[in-house]
Amino acid sequence: MTDRFSFTLLKTDGGARRGRIDMPRGTIRTPAFMPVGTAGTVKAMYPGQVRELGADIILGNTYHLMLRPGAERVAKLGGLHVFANWPHPILTDSGGFQVMSLAQLRKLDENGVTFQSHIDGRRYEMTPERSVEIQGLLDSDIQMQLDECVALPAEEKEIERAMQLSLRWAERSKAAFGDQPGKAIFGIVQGGDNERLRGESASALAAMDFKGYSIGGLAVGEPQAVMLRILEMTTPILPREKPRYLMGVGTPEDIIESVARGVDMFDCVMPTRAGRHGLAFTRFGKVNLKNARHAEDHRPLDESSDCPASRDYSRAYLHHLFKSGETLAAMLLTWNNLAYYQSLMAGIRAAIDEDRFEKFRQTTKAGWARGDIAPL
Amino acid sequence: MTDRFSFTLLKTDGGARRGRIDMPRGTIRTPAFMPVGTAGTVKAMYPGQVRELGADIILGNTYHLMLRPGAERVAKLGGLHVFANWPHPILTDSGGFQVMSLAQLRKLDENGVTFQSHIDGRRYEMTPERSVEIQGLLDSDIQMQLDECVALPAEEKEIERAMQLSLRWAERSKAAFGDQPGKAIFGIVQGGDNERLRGESASALAAMDFKGYSIGGLAVGEPQAVMLRILEMTTPILPREKPRYLMGVGTPEDIIESVARGVDMFDCVMPTRAGRHGLAFTRFGKVNLKNARHAEDHRPLDESSDCPASRDYSRAYLHHLFKSGETLAAMLLTWNNLAYYQSLMAGIRAAIDEDRFEKFRQTTKAGWARGDIAPL
Repeated sequence: MTDRFSFTLLKTDGGARRGRIDMPRGTIRTPAFMPVGTAGTVKAMYPGQVRELGADIILGNTYHLMLRPGAERVAKLGGLHVFANWPHPILTDSGGFQVMSLAQLRKLDENGVTFQSHIDGRRYEMTPERSVEIQGLLDSDIQMQLDECVALPAEEKEIERAMQLSLRWAERSKAAFGDQPGKAIFGIVQGGDNERLRGESASALAAMDFKGYSIGGLAVGEPQAVMLRILEMTTPILPREKPRYLMGVGTPEDIIESVARGVDMFDCVMPTRAGRHGLAFTRFGKVNLKNARHAEDHRPLDESSDCPASRDYSRAYLHHLFKSGETLAAMLLTWNNLAYYQSLMAGIRAAIDEDRFEKFRQTTKAGWARGDIAPL
Repeated sequence: MTDRFSFTLLKTDGGARRGRIDMPRGTIRTPAFMPVGTAGTVKAMYPGQVRELGADIILGNTYHLMLRPGAERVAKLGGLHVFANWPHPILTDSGGFQVMSLAQLRKLDENGVTFQSHIDGRRYEMTPERSVEIQGLLDSDIQMQLDECVALPAEEKEIERAMQLSLRWAERSKAAFGDQPGKAIFGIVQGGDNERLRGESASALAAMDFKGYSIGGLAVGEPQAVMLRILEMTTPILPREKPRYLMGVGTPEDIIESVARGVDMFDCVMPTRAGRHGLAFTRFGKVNLKNARHAEDHRPLDESSDCPASRDYSRAYLHHLFKSGETLAAMLLTWNNLAYYQSLMAGIRAAIDEDRFEKFRQTTKAGWARGDIAPL
């Protein structure tokens, strides 16, 4: 155990990095996938299951938690770890992204953003300082600076304005966070799909000496190739000895390609959200369990998996559960998907450890390309 | 292991009975509570959890399963045990009760009942013989005869007509079931709240020599006192050496009072359905987690419980999950409720074993009467 936040870069293999974040609440093995626990729960999973699958850290959404049950209430109840029965590290976003996508009557200026709750219309003000305060009340281990994320495509001028504002908010966020040795706040690189702006943002943030760096504003509408090009030019600008977190990404392929470009941490609702809608991630690509081809298929999703959800239930049963609107449908498929994502990360880490990441990447992508087993 | 269905009455304590049903798929310790797995899933629970809580047997609903995914399909997939990943005994109802409560355009005559599916309007015919056939396709271990259950209050004449029809259907069901040594079909006592009719029904069924007897048509609108009076006069008429199953009952108090009157088996949607709606069963009565009094209550439902759902999550968190419509809300509260029901049954069995059932009944009821802990 340690009382300080630290990142150790253990090994590289091409552009891929193997590392370790040590924090008072635990160690995060990187590359890491962080399941999203939006409102204090990774949807349709018991926290113990999430941990057993190999998650070292989960994500909490500041926007959702500040509205309900409220940051002050979570603090009163002992913080998010106690509240959600998750004693391991938690990363929180700043709330800004969801203010812009979910809240009503938003007004953004230099100081911050005012908005109305999408739940009850109540009025809130969010500034860099208030975001840090809320994340502190939640007792988050890794905080995010407040930033402004622009949906792509967008005008260069608009991207630049938001990026510059995000840099000023980075300074204010870092100042508000102050000196908390066991915790961290990450600065967020913005700049859309513009290499010049991304470069400016990354350089300016690097100069501010954050404990870690997020890359935001990607996977927001642009083609994957654009995202990878931006990553390729951004990660070399970021300090080698600091962790890099690609926010809200992504598909298994996004993840493996981003690891190849030097990313250490990921989060995405994809495995959990897709699981609730009948879509399974497997070694052999995606499987839509709602499809009638599974109605009489006695075979499991993946008989060689360690995960009971993937191994012990027939496709026919999963199909039936979705058709019948049963809760167990979401429970089993979320479990399968998070198991697959975590096994992918474990595979990536082992491959980097053993200097065979490039081969692992090719083999894994060949599996996805092979596709699902043929119908019965 | 055994290849035959058998019931052993191990012990009595007053009216309460301790017994054991042995079947090829397992042993059922009685008095037993059977969680309801309507459409092939005990809602919001993994089957392994249901088993770990102490359930020796679950119930499947013939009506739901015949409509979706269909009995022939379940048979093709290896039967309900394989389909639902539950290798232990399964009891099925006849489908009749839900035909009468859920289906549309019902037409009942001597031969059986025709109806339209509430899902897609498709037309079905249900006869005593078809019900046995469907339950066989599901590979049910304990089947029910097709019967007609009348909602109370009802005219004596109407109750008598349905009871007599149910007796004729009992004969037909038993004949259709034939000789299956490892399985059983139970006859169902009807007769509403009328002691004369209940007596006639029980005597006639006893003479037919079923392997077990169900008591149907109770807890369908009548006061608890009426149900208990009917039980008191019915159970002595039933063969002592056969198990007795009170269908669709009930609250913890219904169960303990019915055990006192010689009932061996129970099923009810109450713990699972209430769990999905925010109502927790505990040693100290019911707790409505949606109530605002829990919003900042850091205490668990029952800190001395062995069940993680009861012990490891605060009332404030459970309240939050219900307010936010999170799946974990139903998962945790169903778990708590089934844990409580199974611990109640384990307590009942131990008390009968040790000749202290009457004391256990009083202590348990005193706990419920004490009520929940005071608000903070």
